[in-house]
Amino acid sequence: MTVLNLDDPLFATYVIAATLMILKAVSMSWLTVIRMMQENGGFRSPEDIRKTPFNPAPSPAQLAPNDRVERIRRIQMNDLENLPYFLVAALIFVLAGPPLWLAQVLLYAYVVTRVLHFAAYLTAQTHDMRALLWTPGSLILIFITLWSLVAAIA
Amino acid sequence: MTVLNLDDPLFATYVIAATLMILKAVSMSWLTVIRMMQENGGFRSPEDIRKTPFNPAPSPAQLAPNDRVERIRRIQMNDLENLPYFLVAALIFVLAGPPLWLAQVLLYAYVVTRVLHFAAYLTAQTHDMRALLWTPGSLILIFITLWSLVAAIA
Amino acid sequence: MTVLNLDDPLFATYVIAATLMILKAVSMSWLTVIRMMQENGGFRSPEDIRKTPFNPAPSPAQLAPNDRVERIRRIQMNDLENLPYFLVAALIFVLAGPPLWLAQVLLYAYVVTRVLHFAAYLTAQTHDMRALLWTPGSLILIFITLWSLVAAIA
Repeated sequence: MTVLNLDDPLFATYVIAATLMILKAVSMSWLTVIRMMQENGGFRSPEDIRKTPFNPAPSPAQLAPNDRVERIRRIQMNDLENLPYFLVAALIFVLAGPPLWLAQVLLYAYVVTRVLHFAAYLTAQTHDMRALLWTPGSLILIFITLWSLVAAIA
Repeated sequence: MTVLNLDDPLFATYVIAATLMILKAVSMSWLTVIRMMQENGGFRSPEDIRKTPFNPAPSPAQLAPNDRVERIRRIQMNDLENLPYFLVAALIFVLAGPPLWLAQVLLYAYVVTRVLHFAAYLTAQTHDMRALLWTPGSLILIFITLWSLVAAIA
Repeated sequence: MTVLNLDDPLFATYVIAATLMILKAVSMSWLTVIRMMQENGGFRSPEDIRKTPFNPAPSPAQLAPNDRVERIRRIQMNDLENLPYFLVAALIFVLAGPPLWLAQVLLYAYVVTRVLHFAAYLTAQTHDMRALLWTPGSLILIFITLWSLVAAIA
């Protein structure tokens, strides 16, 4: 039995991987904010072109999609399609009692591939490169989920 | 060690904050349903303009974006960009053994700022106001995540 | 107290339901990949129409929304609006110590309704049918969340 205690190396491995992924995800929100401020646009709601202290010279063009802002929103959407499932699957996985080395390899490799995928997406590398960097993370997610399922029904 | 038992006040604090946030998130789905029925539109799939008992007089205009429905979808999207990460980060945080008062202040403050953010978004307050109400929740999320990461690697 | 151990039938019930839902969600990503390859389009980023080994004859039409790809993206979005909340709510629910039969009925029924909802969406059944298959899952989610909240404050 894995004890949900930071002294347990399996649980500590989970906490390190999970918190790094959450920080990565939250930073997409802030990166969106930064780019909206830099571009003075890329807004989404009709009320965002009301005159305010932060938007002293509003214009309807501020509601048009902005390439630099939309790129971060696509990255954030890709996070949403992957990270919430990883965060739960990885918790279940460490509770299913895998070997420590296996948990460390898989969870930390997941973190690394997501950071590389982010770097490739941010700098507009090819679709092939993005696919190459997304695939191992998705396979790790499937593997740890199947492992836990088999452990639960065995 | 925090025991995952409702008699543990740290875990009970988590459960109260988490369930309130989940109920908030789920109610966005129902609010979308209600507004689609009120507006008789804001649908998304081509098959949604087939004639059915609930849609006896279909029209292609029902697939056009509807402002009142799209507002709820934007609020729901904002929830998705924040709540799943909070739900996992807050669980890890209470397992990392923070002082009870700190967990109560941070988790309940998070809930309050999300409800206020929702109220501001629903009533189309300014972008500045929305940003003001989103920021403390995001900072709380970053704080509890960093706290847990530091506790895991210390 | 529920022990987070696969020998505990409540926790095993959670793990089975949760892992099945995660596998379902992850397969939407792969189904999107498959359809983008079949359609040779439905891409989203400007760099996706660069010439690469996987895209030897790029064209701007590849960035246009593709019906078969967009359908999977809508299904994936519906998963996102539901599954992350279910995954956390169901974990909290089993920790709140419900009767085993109740947890089994509710969590497995949730899984079944989500699979049926997917089948209806994939085959473009009517909006009425989709609503009929979405509703019980959402009510189960609300029920298990309220149960946990009441257990925490009682």
